[in-house]
Amino acid sequence: MADPRFYAARGPLTLAELAEIAGAAITDGADSARRFSDVAPLEDAGPNDVSFLDNRRYLDAFAASRAGACLVRPELAERAPTGMALLLTETPYRAYAHVARAFHPDVHPRPGVHVAAVVDPAARLAPGVTVAAGAMIGPRAEIGQHCNIGPNAVLGPGVVLGPDCTIGANASLSHCIVGARVVVYPGVRIGQDGFGFAMGQEGHLKVPQLGRVIIGDDVEIGANTCIDRGSAGDTVIGPGCIIDNLVQIGHNVRLGRGCVLVAQVGISGSTQLGDFVVIGGQGGLAGHLKVGSGVQIAAQSGVHRDIPAGQSMGGTPAVPIEEWRRQVARLRLLVKRRGD
Amino acid sequence: MADPRFYAARGPLTLAELAEIAGAAITDGADSARRFSDVAPLEDAGPNDVSFLDNRRYLDAFAASRAGACLVRPELAERAPTGMALLLTETPYRAYAHVARAFHPDVHPRPGVHVAAVVDPAARLAPGVTVAAGAMIGPRAEIGQHCNIGPNAVLGPGVVLGPDCTIGANASLSHCIVGARVVVYPGVRIGQDGFGFAMGQEGHLKVPQLGRVIIGDDVEIGANTCIDRGSAGDTVIGPGCIIDNLVQIGHNVRLGRGCVLVAQVGISGSTQLGDFVVIGGQGGLAGHLKVGSGVQIAAQSGVHRDIPAGQSMGGTPAVPIEEWRRQVARLRLLVKRRGD
Amino acid sequence: MADPRFYAARGPLTLAELAEIAGAAITDGADSARRFSDVAPLEDAGPNDVSFLDNRRYLDAFAASRAGACLVRPELAERAPTGMALLLTETPYRAYAHVARAFHPDVHPRPGVHVAAVVDPAARLAPGVTVAAGAMIGPRAEIGQHCNIGPNAVLGPGVVLGPDCTIGANASLSHCIVGARVVVYPGVRIGQDGFGFAMGQEGHLKVPQLGRVIIGDDVEIGANTCIDRGSAGDTVIGPGCIIDNLVQIGHNVRLGRGCVLVAQVGISGSTQLGDFVVIGGQGGLAGHLKVGSGVQIAAQSGVHRDIPAGQSMGGTPAVPIEEWRRQVARLRLLVKRRGD
Repeated sequence: MADPRFYAARGPLTLAELAEIAGAAITDGADSARRFSDVAPLEDAGPNDVSFLDNRRYLDAFAASRAGACLVRPELAERAPTGMALLLTETPYRAYAHVARAFHPDVHPRPGVHVAAVVDPAARLAPGVTVAAGAMIGPRAEIGQHCNIGPNAVLGPGVVLGPDCTIGANASLSHCIVGARVVVYPGVRIGQDGFGFAMGQEGHLKVPQLGRVIIGDDVEIGANTCIDRGSAGDTVIGPGCIIDNLVQIGHNVRLGRGCVLVAQVGISGSTQLGDFVVIGGQGGLAGHLKVGSGVQIAAQSGVHRDIPAGQSMGGTPAVPIEEWRRQVARLRLLVKRRGD
Repeated sequence: MADPRFYAARGPLTLAELAEIAGAAITDGADSARRFSDVAPLEDAGPNDVSFLDNRRYLDAFAASRAGACLVRPELAERAPTGMALLLTETPYRAYAHVARAFHPDVHPRPGVHVAAVVDPAARLAPGVTVAAGAMIGPRAEIGQHCNIGPNAVLGPGVVLGPDCTIGANASLSHCIVGARVVVYPGVRIGQDGFGFAMGQEGHLKVPQLGRVIIGDDVEIGANTCIDRGSAGDTVIGPGCIIDNLVQIGHNVRLGRGCVLVAQVGISGSTQLGDFVVIGGQGGLAGHLKVGSGVQIAAQSGVHRDIPAGQSMGGTPAVPIEEWRRQVARLRLLVKRRGD
Repeated sequence: MADPRFYAARGPLTLAELAEIAGAAITDGADSARRFSDVAPLEDAGPNDVSFLDNRRYLDAFAASRAGACLVRPELAERAPTGMALLLTETPYRAYAHVARAFHPDVHPRPGVHVAAVVDPAARLAPGVTVAAGAMIGPRAEIGQHCNIGPNAVLGPGVVLGPDCTIGANASLSHCIVGARVVVYPGVRIGQDGFGFAMGQEGHLKVPQLGRVIIGDDVEIGANTCIDRGSAGDTVIGPGCIIDNLVQIGHNVRLGRGCVLVAQVGISGSTQLGDFVVIGGQGGLAGHLKVGSGVQIAAQSGVHRDIPAGQSMGGTPAVPIEEWRRQVARLRLLVKRRGD
């Protein structure tokens, strides 16, 4: 199903090969030599496609699907339509990721610096780097092996990228040190001055921003997201963090490992997150807070206080999620009861 | 009034010509040969300008205006100052659009590829295309007649644009098929990977994003807005949708015809909207929802459930708008009554 | 502490010199000839560094700091660790700004137009202008003395910049007239069409946007922020305003002097702010409002009505901040009392 205009394809793959790639089990009596040519969503898949069921919301689509094979949890297998080959796994979405990549391996661009790129003579490029047309790399920048710098991207003086990073089109990075395998999406802004002003009626005085942005390995940073550099210390994004589009991260913010920030989240200056914190879309955090590891914050919540590790929060101002649900229910009841 | 530094001008136009352009009626005894040279807002307009009154909020400005002529609904005509020529219409704002365009017709750039643009030899450009300096067009891209590609815009491999599209400065498009007369504003990001990760404490595994973005005819996409491509199927923007600045549209989202998304709206993955849905600024929708045609969602609302067609919603979590108003009123009353 | 990879350094400076730069007093008996080499945050500073204490939240860090000197309010001086030289001032953050700039003066790029920039022959550049690689300057643009135009920035036809402006990488400006010393961050979008459509089921009709953006002196505009031009009159940003990242400013909005808009704020069309209005992160204002001078609006608030000068507001829909606090407290109490 993947449009060949945009995606390279490999295949077909047999059911046995798919089971191995996915770490999944085949049901007894299934034809392990049956061949499949692609992945597809449940509604669109045909007999040569592999699909997956991860969210129970799509159980009906699963039962009605014409997919030739499907990755599914064992307990839902009985809902499968007849004739569908099953690939049983406790983590169907993760398994699907492996299968999809097997059918459509990443394509690496041919290394080299495009004639219309501008690389400062004092920049250092490791072997295997690709620099697209219109990209600019400043003096003393250091670009790791096999990095791929997209069209019209701008890397300022002294920027350091570890190996295997991808920088999207029209992104700009300055004052930052980036780890390995980091993916920066198009239009991302990293390393610009933070919002540091000494305010006053006589005019707001800009405070020099003298820190950096430090980005760990395996981080993804979504399109048009902004990460300001530290004011004196550093802004730090821990390894494995995934950050969606249009997110704002203020100066001196520190994220631990594996945090997940959904689109349009905003984190004010100097706030610190532990590991594996998850913030829903459009959530906002005030500055100078400490948020413990494993905290989950509902979409659109507004956090004004420190949060201990492991807590789930919701609402503005945010309270423990169960309390927020009770508030919502109470408010509905009040209105229903009395009419107004 | 329009600054000649930025706008071409045509005119003058007579009251009779304006009435025809606007589809408006002239009042008895008006001088249909009277000439006007430009449009202007009520407060700034002079005797040679045409203005309009659409929002009752500006009735006082209308009554005090020095505009030579004004587009206005018949029932408000009696509020006009003496000497003002009236152009009577039930749709003054729409009529104003036609009049303004008559005074300031769109200027089309001279076709051709700038010497500082980079167009892959395997891209296909229809006649009449303009490609500005610094723009990049990838292999196998197909650009329709009279498209205008702005400075430093990036069109990835295989991207298809229908005729008469405008791509703003520094925008980037990949993995997308775009209809006719689509306007993409500066800094827009279309077609990048969606936020697809199989999450886990052992690390978040990226799921290959193998779909596309399909954009219908006559769509407008505001500055720095992001539209992620589908994960397996497509992200679809129906014909006639107008999307403001800094909006986030997740993977697999589907918008029907004529939807209106005001600035900073966020729509999570796989949510589907019917036709003519309107979402106020900063509104947020959770993923995997179905929102019926004609639904209206108030600014800053947070939607977590399906919404049947025609409903108006407000609040977080969103409820029918009348219920939300009662909640707000009740909360105010509680505070007033008891003091705290 | 500032990474020499990214920052130029000057120094050392004596305590006496620092006191003069900061407008601060030295305590009796301090060694005014003691030398310092840099600024650093309280936790990281060593004996050769100058730090500052502005927020009482960091009193413990102050008491434990190894900083050689610290800018501090006189009433907190007694909390200082022994051996720390004190620089007493009522405005430690403002004083820090001056000290930091003394150690790390701004570096001005060498004037000139990069060979990979594209400047229209009909543009006028004052002496001392720097134009980086990939930047585009359109016909009839006028660029003031010592302006610095970043890589891949795009300035449209007729754009006017006053002296000493900085335009960030990949920013785009059109239809605007900009004052002196304005800083435009990377990815900013200024002057594109506002969201002007005459809506209707038969299709939304675009209304020509014929105004401009007028930006006063000493304004800062954060990364990826969008400012639409006026529809007929102008969008106006008053002198000294500071605007954070990812902010949306609709057409015809007018900001007075010294307004502060924190990240992800959205202001709808035709709303007018007085002087020194402060809006917290993710706050939203409906269109056609008047907000008086000195108004403060809490983060994430949603404003739907005019606000008189000097008022503080919070909540959605926004109410006076004390009333909002009572609403929040009442809701918490209701849930606690009755359980649900």
